[in-house]
Amino acid sequence: MSGRKDLDYYFYPESLAVIGASTNTYKAGYQIVKNMLDYGFTGKVYPVNPKEKEVLGLSCYQTLNDIPGNLDLIIIAVPSSHVLGVMKEAAARGGIKAAVVVAAGFAETKVPELVELEKEIVATARQAGIRVFGPNCVGIQNTRNFLDTTIEPPVVKTQGDISIITQSGAMGGTTLLFMEEQPAPLGFSKWAHVGNMSDVDVLEILEYYGEDQDTRVVGMYMEGIRDGQRFREIASKVTKEKPVIILKVGRSEIGSRAAASHTGALAGSDKIYDAAFAKCGVTRVDYLEELVDVAKGFSMQPLPQGNRVCILTEAGGPGIVAVDQLGFAKHAELAHISEEGRKKLEACLPSMAMICHPDGYIDITAAAMSEHHADALNVVLDEPGVDAVLLITVPPTFLPPVELAQSLLPALKAANKPVFVCFLAGKWCDEANAFLEANGIPTFKMPSQAVRVLDEMMERKKYLDKIARQEGGAPNA
Amino acid sequence: MSGRKDLDYYFYPESLAVIGASTNTYKAGYQIVKNMLDYGFTGKVYPVNPKEKEVLGLSCYQTLNDIPGNLDLIIIAVPSSHVLGVMKEAAARGGIKAAVVVAAGFAETKVPELVELEKEIVATARQAGIRVFGPNCVGIQNTRNFLDTTIEPPVVKTQGDISIITQSGAMGGTTLLFMEEQPAPLGFSKWAHVGNMSDVDVLEILEYYGEDQDTRVVGMYMEGIRDGQRFREIASKVTKEKPVIILKVGRSEIGSRAAASHTGALAGSDKIYDAAFAKCGVTRVDYLEELVDVAKGFSMQPLPQGNRVCILTEAGGPGIVAVDQLGFAKHAELAHISEEGRKKLEACLPSMAMICHPDGYIDITAAAMSEHHADALNVVLDEPGVDAVLLITVPPTFLPPVELAQSLLPALKAANKPVFVCFLAGKWCDEANAFLEANGIPTFKMPSQAVRVLDEMMERKKYLDKIARQEGGAPNA
Repeated sequence: MSGRKDLDYYFYPESLAVIGASTNTYKAGYQIVKNMLDYGFTGKVYPVNPKEKEVLGLSCYQTLNDIPGNLDLIIIAVPSSHVLGVMKEAAARGGIKAAVVVAAGFAETKVPELVELEKEIVATARQAGIRVFGPNCVGIQNTRNFLDTTIEPPVVKTQGDISIITQSGAMGGTTLLFMEEQPAPLGFSKWAHVGNMSDVDVLEILEYYGEDQDTRVVGMYMEGIRDGQRFREIASKVTKEKPVIILKVGRSEIGSRAAASHTGALAGSDKIYDAAFAKCGVTRVDYLEELVDVAKGFSMQPLPQGNRVCILTEAGGPGIVAVDQLGFAKHAELAHISEEGRKKLEACLPSMAMICHPDGYIDITAAAMSEHHADALNVVLDEPGVDAVLLITVPPTFLPPVELAQSLLPALKAANKPVFVCFLAGKWCDEANAFLEANGIPTFKMPSQAVRVLDEMMERKKYLDKIARQEGGAPNA
Repeated sequence: MSGRKDLDYYFYPESLAVIGASTNTYKAGYQIVKNMLDYGFTGKVYPVNPKEKEVLGLSCYQTLNDIPGNLDLIIIAVPSSHVLGVMKEAAARGGIKAAVVVAAGFAETKVPELVELEKEIVATARQAGIRVFGPNCVGIQNTRNFLDTTIEPPVVKTQGDISIITQSGAMGGTTLLFMEEQPAPLGFSKWAHVGNMSDVDVLEILEYYGEDQDTRVVGMYMEGIRDGQRFREIASKVTKEKPVIILKVGRSEIGSRAAASHTGALAGSDKIYDAAFAKCGVTRVDYLEELVDVAKGFSMQPLPQGNRVCILTEAGGPGIVAVDQLGFAKHAELAHISEEGRKKLEACLPSMAMICHPDGYIDITAAAMSEHHADALNVVLDEPGVDAVLLITVPPTFLPPVELAQSLLPALKAANKPVFVCFLAGKWCDEANAFLEANGIPTFKMPSQAVRVLDEMMERKKYLDKIARQEGGAPNA
């Protein structure tokens, strides 16, 4: 097909072969074919194994040569010592565009012969026009065509607009599991684990995601990259279009040494990465939970136009936790409520309410019913001195959480500013949180998380404004 | 009863009255009686309300005076304007030892008349020998006698050895919900929310927990205290016996101002608190999730004898996350594996395993089966250069998590060093994590959490050793 990018053959193959397909449930070659069938991949799947007649109901091919017609992608799920042979067969067959090499035991071992073997595999592939994912990798997932080449533990795959790149299969898989465990499962578009990056690397995928219509937010787990200049070029280009959130390990010297032993990547000084991330508009996070929180914020809410957050809380303690976190924010600060706004709040809230002590912090108190929550929310959303709202509530026993959430939804959905919600806590509020997220309103377990996410969204807004000024255009909306 | 402490009448009352008991399900006076009955409080419960004949099947008393015999505790669940009148009746009746005042709208408002009203209520009580919890508080829970005076959302109450003190009902309730949501519910012994601290304050409760046989770990949510000298005396005394973990807000200047508006406590400079915590051996945490993690570590595992942690991982990424976090630890560092230990590991692990790159970090790789996990664990637990072990695994599809957990349990239970486990991730490993925790092995969602907990346990060990040296005794075991 003309006009297709190299990576299209990975993410949108029309046909693929699993080499080493097996009926032995302990083998990767069984699991991969099973994933494809269970998930319902829209293209053709060809199992290949000279020792098998049939795998999971599909006729098994003896060799790649026996497969008729087009073959875009091959998943090589054989032991490391057999990979070169398979790649030679693939090159000889012709017409194959892309390969995933699952086996470990190559350059990451730093054993000279195995480093050489990896190079030979890649050279063989590239001469035949085949690109290589891996080795030492689990490959690709795409929720658009129900593609899953991995051997990861089962994840419910929800379609969404977040795409993931990972240098660790385990961390990448855990990212999806954390996303699935949000009150309403947080969906994804594409997922890729690159292993040793002998050919295709994280930067090529980042660039691809940057141009992908189905990706609005990119999340990456990074251990290290080799070409800083190329990173800066690609990251700068992509962050202009969509947020790129990176969890990079090797922040400490000892962690950086451990990273070098994993994928063999040159980790390099963390300060250099940090400076590059800031310069390129990358959103850096320290923990996987943060990556998921920040991705959720970007995916569900518009960017705030300024740094002023109104904290509207029904309970003192969690409200103070939120304000306390604001004190450590890079950008976020308490909002300003006008004299008129304060009067409106006084008129609509219980007499015990603490309005603007300090300014922008409103404790509506545990006496607040549903209408108090909703009325106060509408007042602060209308305030010109408010760029974002964090609504916190600990629904008492007489205020069932779902009813409260339903009564708040009209105001939340009508807001043209980011609004984050914390319904505390636990199982008592699970259904309310799920209801809100299913309606596009992000919820967080604790207010401090919400503040961190808002702060990163404000950082991105500031970065985009700076870029727009440099390019002489109008500030980004 | 002679020899009883004042707070015994709160935590172990033989009888209690709920004033304002109601059949109206929206009222606190209904919820409190319901909690008592649902939970199965072992003492006597007397509903009091002149307008009710019966509440939830219990005969309702017109006044406190009508209640025959001993009455240890009264829960005053009437509007704020009625509280003084009730306290006068209680004083006149005589024999009452303790009162909980639920209503808000007193000194925390900073309205002079209401500040005065609170003082008058306390003076009335104290003259009659009645201690006061609150006002503006939800009171007490005790899992030993099934006591619950609160109006908190429902929590499954599991018996355990962690006791909680909180200056926010919402934060205290959320703590229990977070504890309940651990893979195996993390139990508690006692729980207390003190509100305005007009009489009983957090320090008196801390001292009480210090002497309580059923409490091995204390957790506190703190906004501010008034008497620094008394805090230092009591905290120093209690931390010699058991860990005291404090989440104190008001770390930032703006957060400190918000805290002052909540309970009216003098928050004071955070640096002063921080120095006092360090001097008194208090374990300080920044987030509620951390408080629960650290309490779990202290509750389930012995203190490490030194700072050297062996990271044993089946997956590179999460292993590197753990090592990276070690690089930021106050005390924890990578362990040393002897030459002999390395040879044993080489002999028992798959050939691809990365042993001690760097020293103390062992990647057993995704090729590891159950026996590889268990054998390696036994080797490192025997090493003299290892004070604690963090075991990380991402069970592949062919290694069912529960089976793996079962095969590891003998080594985990036999360990005389702290061992923490991370089974990543999500629902795929829920049952395995629950199995391990039910058997006393703490599990964590991410390895970085486990490292933070170990680091705090090492800090406590160091503190206890210092105290022991100062007192001329032997170092604490």
